[in-house]
Amino acid sequence: MAQIIYGIHPVEEALKSPNVEVEKILLGQRRSVSTLQPLLDLARKRGVPVLTVSNEALNEMAGGGLHQSVVAFLKEIPYADLHEILQRWREKKEKALFVVLDGIQDPHNLGALIRTALGCGAHGLIIPKDRAVGMTPTVVKASAGAAAHLPVARVTNLATTIEALKHEGLWVFGAAAEAKERIYEVDFTVDLAVVIGAEGKGMRPLVKKKCDRLFFVPMKGPMTSFNASVCGGMILYEVMRQRHLSMKG
Amino acid sequence: MAQIIYGIHPVEEALKSPNVEVEKILLGQRRSVSTLQPLLDLARKRGVPVLTVSNEALNEMAGGGLHQSVVAFLKEIPYADLHEILQRWREKKEKALFVVLDGIQDPHNLGALIRTALGCGAHGLIIPKDRAVGMTPTVVKASAGAAAHLPVARVTNLATTIEALKHEGLWVFGAAAEAKERIYEVDFTVDLAVVIGAEGKGMRPLVKKKCDRLFFVPMKGPMTSFNASVCGGMILYEVMRQRHLSMKG
Repeated sequence: MAQIIYGIHPVEEALKSPNVEVEKILLGQRRSVSTLQPLLDLARKRGVPVLTVSNEALNEMAGGGLHQSVVAFLKEIPYADLHEILQRWREKKEKALFVVLDGIQDPHNLGALIRTALGCGAHGLIIPKDRAVGMTPTVVKASAGAAAHLPVARVTNLATTIEALKHEGLWVFGAAAEAKERIYEVDFTVDLAVVIGAEGKGMRPLVKKKCDRLFFVPMKGPMTSFNASVCGGMILYEVMRQRHLSMKG
Repeated sequence: MAQIIYGIHPVEEALKSPNVEVEKILLGQRRSVSTLQPLLDLARKRGVPVLTVSNEALNEMAGGGLHQSVVAFLKEIPYADLHEILQRWREKKEKALFVVLDGIQDPHNLGALIRTALGCGAHGLIIPKDRAVGMTPTVVKASAGAAAHLPVARVTNLATTIEALKHEGLWVFGAAAEAKERIYEVDFTVDLAVVIGAEGKGMRPLVKKKCDRLFFVPMKGPMTSFNASVCGGMILYEVMRQRHLSMKG
């Protein structure tokens, strides 16, 4: 099935991405097209057909989302192959950064985490097939275009995949509320896969056991957890910060 | 108007908070109450009446949200007074941390930022009256209970408020995409108010001009910004990290 995305910014990002094929763009009957001009120019340049339909039709396609009179049909974003991602990382000759998500259920959290992972320099994202949201249109939309740029692999067995990553020379560090080590004490400048668990529940025990090291993000006050995508942002920020400082020497 | 919150976890948090008065709790007709027992115990302890209503009535009150058969009516969470917040901070004798949000529009982002600010040890949050979302039920719900614990002041003129904060001896540092200084280079261990701008647009020019210092969060790859609540999480994490290290000496 084709993916549907909507909203001016996400559709523009999709048109800019070399990895995404936009099948067609549908516009509603709106008064002004000036805000759409950059998008229409991009569409012409890439030879994507633009059709006009009723606003009611757009409302239905966007399922009640804020479409700003623009809907695009994408050829499905294919999941990446794990070995392909590893190959791409090796060619870049950078310190590895893979993000492994164990059981994220909320499509907005997954979308935000994809956007954050890309912005922090991750080489790929790995999610499990079971009990987790996949690359749905809501996820693609929430990623604000990032889903088109970051390869996402979906695997059957996360524990086996972690073993495979270790075999490739990566360290696997997991975030767990009950860990003894603070995030500040962990060296993230190694070739790395970071494992982040599900909202509320965290990682499954078998996945946690496979991690080389567990750490927690300290928290003040009466709450017991940060939002999953915010917490992921803190962790990936810390990785980026440490790597920046280590490059400066 | 009374605030409505729903879902087991948010209602439990509200019942635990000394700052929130729960008027009543409505339960739907569900089969098992075992998951609700801690919540019901809390309600009894605080003398909050619990009524049973139809699931349809709950659906309507929750406006389609996932209510898990529990809805609570709160007496409205009052905005805090700026001077009150400053007084509370002074009594704590801690390094100040205030979060100033200029024009956050998305209630989920505001809710997540309240939750993050509380978890990172902020003393209060300041939002403007105009062109920004206020403490709506969606915000309270998205804060996962944090809105009941963190004082939020709503002010008419953010620029004047920033002047007042400076007058109290606080430094005002703002996050701005076009800043020259990386976040890594900024000392956040001073008495501080951090200003974060609106999704996409950032701070208004007048607010930006009032900041003592501007910094940016570096980003890799083709995207131009992080999600507003994720970016806020990175900044508040960095403040917490630096303060932890400085306390260790």
